[in-house]
Amino acid sequence: MTKARAYTNIALIKYWGKRSITEMIPYNNSISLTLDQFYTETSVTFTEATTQQKPDQFYFQGQWQAPTNKMTRVLTRIRQMAGLNRQAIIKSENFVPTSAGLASSASAFAALATAGSRAAGLNLSSRELSILARHGSGSASRSVLGGFVEWQAGTDDQSSYAQSLLDPVPFPIVVIALVVNTAPKKILSTAGMQHSVEHSPFYPAWVKTATAALAPMRAAIAQGDIEQIGKLGETNAMQMHATTLSANPPFTYFAPETLQIWQLVQEIRTKGLSCYLTLDAGPNPKLICAKQDVASITTQLHQALPKLAWTVCQPGPAVQIID
Amino acid sequence: MTKARAYTNIALIKYWGKRSITEMIPYNNSISLTLDQFYTETSVTFTEATTQQKPDQFYFQGQWQAPTNKMTRVLTRIRQMAGLNRQAIIKSENFVPTSAGLASSASAFAALATAGSRAAGLNLSSRELSILARHGSGSASRSVLGGFVEWQAGTDDQSSYAQSLLDPVPFPIVVIALVVNTAPKKILSTAGMQHSVEHSPFYPAWVKTATAALAPMRAAIAQGDIEQIGKLGETNAMQMHATTLSANPPFTYFAPETLQIWQLVQEIRTKGLSCYLTLDAGPNPKLICAKQDVASITTQLHQALPKLAWTVCQPGPAVQIID
Repeated sequence: MTKARAYTNIALIKYWGKRSITEMIPYNNSISLTLDQFYTETSVTFTEATTQQKPDQFYFQGQWQAPTNKMTRVLTRIRQMAGLNRQAIIKSENFVPTSAGLASSASAFAALATAGSRAAGLNLSSRELSILARHGSGSASRSVLGGFVEWQAGTDDQSSYAQSLLDPVPFPIVVIALVVNTAPKKILSTAGMQHSVEHSPFYPAWVKTATAALAPMRAAIAQGDIEQIGKLGETNAMQMHATTLSANPPFTYFAPETLQIWQLVQEIRTKGLSCYLTLDAGPNPKLICAKQDVASITTQLHQALPKLAWTVCQPGPAVQIID
Repeated sequence: MTKARAYTNIALIKYWGKRSITEMIPYNNSISLTLDQFYTETSVTFTEATTQQKPDQFYFQGQWQAPTNKMTRVLTRIRQMAGLNRQAIIKSENFVPTSAGLASSASAFAALATAGSRAAGLNLSSRELSILARHGSGSASRSVLGGFVEWQAGTDDQSSYAQSLLDPVPFPIVVIALVVNTAPKKILSTAGMQHSVEHSPFYPAWVKTATAALAPMRAAIAQGDIEQIGKLGETNAMQMHATTLSANPPFTYFAPETLQIWQLVQEIRTKGLSCYLTLDAGPNPKLICAKQDVASITTQLHQALPKLAWTVCQPGPAVQIID
């Protein structure tokens, strides 16, 4: 039995749409920050039984179930790499609200790739782990690493993987994860992104724009310029969401509360505080700010929205094997 | 003294951004429906005094004020066309919530162009009135006509004007105008559209897409296909709003309630009713549906949002001189 813990990440320059669905190759590079507060712990055991004798088993949320297709894809790759034909038993626990835009699939597949490959006797590099995790979920390729991470889109299986940009992070950036809605998403990100790719006339401009935003974001990270990271992140997030709004038929991941919070963030900025909003394929916003401003910002959030829940995250570490 | 009444219109394929700001030439044609419930009544009198002797005077919302720059632009054109150098006294009353995305400027400038030109002794064609009204507000070029109207973008002053597509309208289309917010807009449409033109990387794709949607919209109108009019209108509206969301910096005219209502409209559709949403540069949605569905739709709106106010509009007439 080998157990791994991997952390979620929030994309600052988003991954939104695949050039190759079968190979999980994205259209553009993405840049993320791994977060220290949300994670998945997954253990994998390869039993004596062969895959012909017994199907893989998956224990999740307190019950046994069949592994998902994406899990099977990752496990099949692990067995191929290790020359192994054994049944896998996977136990996984999410310390993340599932399917609420908090990218639990990122931490889940980074943990599965890491625990599974180690359990199979492989000792993969972070590059190899990133490639493996990518086959479960695109954003999982980034959760293999800590701090600021860039996923190189690449052009084929072996050239599409994440690399560290900055870890540990020497400046006090904080991400305040707000929870306005814990219901599962109606439109999963895989479906939503492909709808944008195929049915938004704005999609080609998205790819160009996101790609052009990479160099300024790398520069802002290198300079430790939290305000600029936030500003570039907010613009990129809204551009991603504009691809869903412009699709035919149109849709949005925004909830009414998402807009309410964005308005509040804009008001907070007019008071001189630096605070920017990003969100993935779900209604829950994340605010990007400096650690010293967290108290003022959360006080104002609480005054305006007394029921709002949040978690203050700092940069998180790379995936790790735990006992 | 000559008085005119002009009705607002709702764009089904939106006007969003000017190719020439000085000449008020849009990037793309737009298609609208004139509405019978919101209108402006404006009277114009040219006095014996010259413009050198006395400035124009404007009585609006119960008080005298200086005419706006846009009004002066229209009045100057009228005086040039009529070879007249007299002071104008304008009295105007809006039967539209001002600046709440209900396009009061459309009815206001169609009424001003019509009353002003007639008061100056001119007898303009609807094409000439449309050109004149356009110099006050782009969408006013369409409010000169009734029913379904298309504004030909054109390439210069004389080629940019609205034409009738269908008037009277022989099928039972209805627009339910919802009021979620009567506060004046924070970002006026003139500023918002030019921000999209200059700062949204998606803007060129918007122009192409809106232009490509004209022929299907004309066909749906010709066929009296209310569902298709609604569907095309909703998609086009969201694409327009995606240009503001994708601008740098991003912004939106949506209020939290706008999204709440869009969600509700989507639920109403799953119950088999045909109902689509459009909105201009403001938070107040308009629903496109058939007359026979108004009762079911408004019942569901009222159940979900007991405080919501609405007005049921039918196709409205062209601008008219009233006594």
